[in-house]
Amino acid sequence: MSDAASTPVAFIGLGNMGGPMAANLRRAGFPVRGFDLSEPACKQAADQGVDIAESARATLAGAKVLVSMLPASRHVESLYLGEDGVLAAIEKDTLIIDCSTIAPASAQKVAAAATARGLAMLDAPVSGGTAGAAAGTLTFIVGGDSKALERARPVLEAMGRNIFHMGDAGAGQVAKLCNNMALGVIMAVTGEAIALGAAHGLDPKTLSAMMAVSTSRSWATEVCNPWPGVIETAPASRGYTGGFGNDLMLKDLGLAVEAAMGIGATIPLGELARNLYALNRTAGRGGLDFSSVVKLVAPEG
Amino acid sequence: MSDAASTPVAFIGLGNMGGPMAANLRRAGFPVRGFDLSEPACKQAADQGVDIAESARATLAGAKVLVSMLPASRHVESLYLGEDGVLAAIEKDTLIIDCSTIAPASAQKVAAAATARGLAMLDAPVSGGTAGAAAGTLTFIVGGDSKALERARPVLEAMGRNIFHMGDAGAGQVAKLCNNMALGVIMAVTGEAIALGAAHGLDPKTLSAMMAVSTSRSWATEVCNPWPGVIETAPASRGYTGGFGNDLMLKDLGLAVEAAMGIGATIPLGELARNLYALNRTAGRGGLDFSSVVKLVAPEG
Amino acid sequence: MSDAASTPVAFIGLGNMGGPMAANLRRAGFPVRGFDLSEPACKQAADQGVDIAESARATLAGAKVLVSMLPASRHVESLYLGEDGVLAAIEKDTLIIDCSTIAPASAQKVAAAATARGLAMLDAPVSGGTAGAAAGTLTFIVGGDSKALERARPVLEAMGRNIFHMGDAGAGQVAKLCNNMALGVIMAVTGEAIALGAAHGLDPKTLSAMMAVSTSRSWATEVCNPWPGVIETAPASRGYTGGFGNDLMLKDLGLAVEAAMGIGATIPLGELARNLYALNRTAGRGGLDFSSVVKLVAPEG
Amino acid sequence: MSDAASTPVAFIGLGNMGGPMAANLRRAGFPVRGFDLSEPACKQAADQGVDIAESARATLAGAKVLVSMLPASRHVESLYLGEDGVLAAIEKDTLIIDCSTIAPASAQKVAAAATARGLAMLDAPVSGGTAGAAAGTLTFIVGGDSKALERARPVLEAMGRNIFHMGDAGAGQVAKLCNNMALGVIMAVTGEAIALGAAHGLDPKTLSAMMAVSTSRSWATEVCNPWPGVIETAPASRGYTGGFGNDLMLKDLGLAVEAAMGIGATIPLGELARNLYALNRTAGRGGLDFSSVVKLVAPEG
Repeated sequence: MSDAASTPVAFIGLGNMGGPMAANLRRAGFPVRGFDLSEPACKQAADQGVDIAESARATLAGAKVLVSMLPASRHVESLYLGEDGVLAAIEKDTLIIDCSTIAPASAQKVAAAATARGLAMLDAPVSGGTAGAAAGTLTFIVGGDSKALERARPVLEAMGRNIFHMGDAGAGQVAKLCNNMALGVIMAVTGEAIALGAAHGLDPKTLSAMMAVSTSRSWATEVCNPWPGVIETAPASRGYTGGFGNDLMLKDLGLAVEAAMGIGATIPLGELARNLYALNRTAGRGGLDFSSVVKLVAPEG
Repeated sequence: MSDAASTPVAFIGLGNMGGPMAANLRRAGFPVRGFDLSEPACKQAADQGVDIAESARATLAGAKVLVSMLPASRHVESLYLGEDGVLAAIEKDTLIIDCSTIAPASAQKVAAAATARGLAMLDAPVSGGTAGAAAGTLTFIVGGDSKALERARPVLEAMGRNIFHMGDAGAGQVAKLCNNMALGVIMAVTGEAIALGAAHGLDPKTLSAMMAVSTSRSWATEVCNPWPGVIETAPASRGYTGGFGNDLMLKDLGLAVEAAMGIGATIPLGELARNLYALNRTAGRGGLDFSSVVKLVAPEG
Repeated sequence: MSDAASTPVAFIGLGNMGGPMAANLRRAGFPVRGFDLSEPACKQAADQGVDIAESARATLAGAKVLVSMLPASRHVESLYLGEDGVLAAIEKDTLIIDCSTIAPASAQKVAAAATARGLAMLDAPVSGGTAGAAAGTLTFIVGGDSKALERARPVLEAMGRNIFHMGDAGAGQVAKLCNNMALGVIMAVTGEAIALGAAHGLDPKTLSAMMAVSTSRSWATEVCNPWPGVIETAPASRGYTGGFGNDLMLKDLGLAVEAAMGIGATIPLGELARNLYALNRTAGRGGLDFSSVVKLVAPEG
Repeated sequence: MSDAASTPVAFIGLGNMGGPMAANLRRAGFPVRGFDLSEPACKQAADQGVDIAESARATLAGAKVLVSMLPASRHVESLYLGEDGVLAAIEKDTLIIDCSTIAPASAQKVAAAATARGLAMLDAPVSGGTAGAAAGTLTFIVGGDSKALERARPVLEAMGRNIFHMGDAGAGQVAKLCNNMALGVIMAVTGEAIALGAAHGLDPKTLSAMMAVSTSRSWATEVCNPWPGVIETAPASRGYTGGFGNDLMLKDLGLAVEAAMGIGATIPLGELARNLYALNRTAGRGGLDFSSVVKLVAPEG
């Protein structure tokens, strides 16, 4: 796989994340054949040089690597294991890389089915959001076989900057959930802290600047600050549009809770945060960036 | 105050934080006269060139600046306003800088009494811990008058690196509480996340390395990681000794709760964290570093 | 004090609770001289036979017992200890009974001042709400001296049905807070449970009927059910009007948190509930019955 | 089914709950043929007149009603749907009543399979514990068809006192979870309240007596009080043995969380309580009565 040009890639799921990822593969010289159920998504990918196939299955012809990037467990299970699922149609030497964020148990189920058919499969959820996808600076959090990961490296490196091998099948998903659970709590408490300061008359910008160089510093203070006007490029400064949706964070926290309950783990802050994002959805902000959770405690913020 | 040598400083409270701070003032050329109720603390400061006075009040003779660094509100109120309090003995042109972390209401009370006597006073709690105090890299989070802060700068700069002016009297304390509340939650959820990953078979070191470059990155993953062995210099790697005590975090979270209740603010994660640190104290870890809160969810970690 | 007619009572605070309580004292034969800052409150009490005085202090002339029923700690401290406070004007053999729900520390402070003047004082907060006040079926939760309680019994029995002696000064307030903290949590979780059932298609009335004879039975399922239409006489069935206001529950939970922090106690559910009632206030329901907290999780309920 | 003697009952699961339930059926005149994997359980049931079969399937011969009482979803799914599952062997006119507490989705899955085979099935989890099972005073919380419930009544009435019809298949399980979620929270907050009072010097017995006639009254104050010595017959007064195990409550709260996540419901107190019971298990009290959760906040209680 040393030569990109001789490694055709099938890419299923060309949405906000998958689209720019496929475009980066093209830019690196990989021939990419893609598919998405959404016409506009296909059109945008075509503009970036992706060859659009007529169906998910039709992307596979001649592919050496299959990358999938779908919204949730049920889409991934359906793609691979459903009626007319693609697993049955994948050639033995094609490497499967699923970049979706899904339940670890679901990732393990699909990987086991792949293994049973003699196929190598990695779960490789990403961190970095749409900005990272566009810039090709994603972090890949990988579960699966080391040899399969070595084969995947050139493809992943064309789309991202960091690759972490977390363990066997499903381990990438577990690690992703750990990161996102912590992120969900960090974002919500950063909102609590800034709202508390603002209610006492502090300037949210000065407070955030101080926190950003102190022990409470985080991506939530520095990059995606939840208070409008503090960071110009943050969703909060454009009405909480764009970014990572509240309901996606709610979904990930739900996956974390399931992962915790499955093994009797205790995550009191994680579960409280799940409820805060659920309340934020109930308040009508399910489609906004997840940093809008600050509105729960600072409606006038 | 341009010349350190001609600005005698009185320093009250020469403990783990105050001791090294006073030593840094000496190093910068300030004459320092100090006092502490603890004999060993006085002795250590004397070794660093601090002139030890016989009482708190006795430090004041000739001082142009008074710095105090005490454990809690009651000590500060007692020092300044108590029977035989020093406020009555301070010269009009002496600037007061209280670096203790105390309740905002308490800071405002003492500052009001100082103002009533014609004295300038700043609340300037610090971030950076004992390591920052020793290295002279503290962050000062300041409340009070701008002019007073200008006078204080040379003194603060001899002990730290960042100075944030948060607003009027008490604003420094409010901002400090916001930072520490967020920190307390971030530490506890980082523990939850790593424990969840470890229970699923992930290597805490690899998981932390991934988180440290991802959206859940924080001082708790990178510097003071709560899992033993991940960061060699962290308290967790030496039995949770040293560092910032659980009961100090519990005290700060209590101050945050009071600050929230006083104005009807909502801090669900902050208050849950307060209870987690209280449970950690109940479990016998009150004197250990606050990162030991991870033991609640991962006793065998 | 065996004869009501020969035991003149001074009554300060004739609001929603105090008014009907004073009326019941009249009905039992006690001469009652009362005062309230609100004119309409005075007028209503006068209609019930209460002799209205020109000031709080003016109620005291000839009184053998003084009953106070005020909204919060600051009113009680101001009444007794403030500038022109009544404590200085109370005769040595007059028994003081404060029925307000206030901070235990505040109750102890006033009781200590009374004791210092040689006066007997009880804290005797009540349970039972406005309905219990009107029906004379209140529960008195008493702190203070046993002998003082014996003297108070005929007066209390004219206004209520149960009397519990909880301990020394302040103990009545502590016990009241314990009850109300548990109540606040029980109400909120009853709302969560019914909302969860309703979202799954269960009939809230049948679900509540089942719970009312099962292990989750409570005053919140049987009497003050938070779901509209389940109990006809509950505030929920009349738009959450009447009843015990959200902001009063919020105040009581705040007192419980203070009482917990003061001695290092842990109350995770109590503190989370405090935040839920704070969020309910933020959502604009501060003036409604506290059972409206269910709207947080079931806005369409 | 008007005559018990002519209605043979198959009973699968003769443990702490099922054993006494089967015995009550015998007492009411029903012929009962039972089975349990545990020999001692079978022996005890035989002593009560239950005819022991050689296998689950062997209980079915001639049965008009099949009652099952098993620990968890997986046991129920395995019994009915597993390899060699009994569903295939049940006669068309035999009524199935599953009294286990399991996931609503699991109950619906088994009921759907039964329906597909033309069999009538009810989910009928119980409230009342081992004491209620022995006394024949259980409450049945039923989901399924009305006609099936009419046929089941004589059998249920021989084992319990109250029957609530909550809706279609699975509705009994949903209602049971609502009850147990509320119960779990009520128990834990009652512990918090009594511990808070005790820490302030109140007598837990007097405090509980007051609460039991006040607005925070509950099964947790009156019957299963979590403080040792308050109620002689409560598990707390015998080292938290007997009663309803911590890990069973943890399981039920887990089912409630799943039921909430499945439909996007918000249960902040329910989920926090789940974590408290998980912490109580971590502390080594998983096998004790769930009221031992009070030890988290009052280890010396």
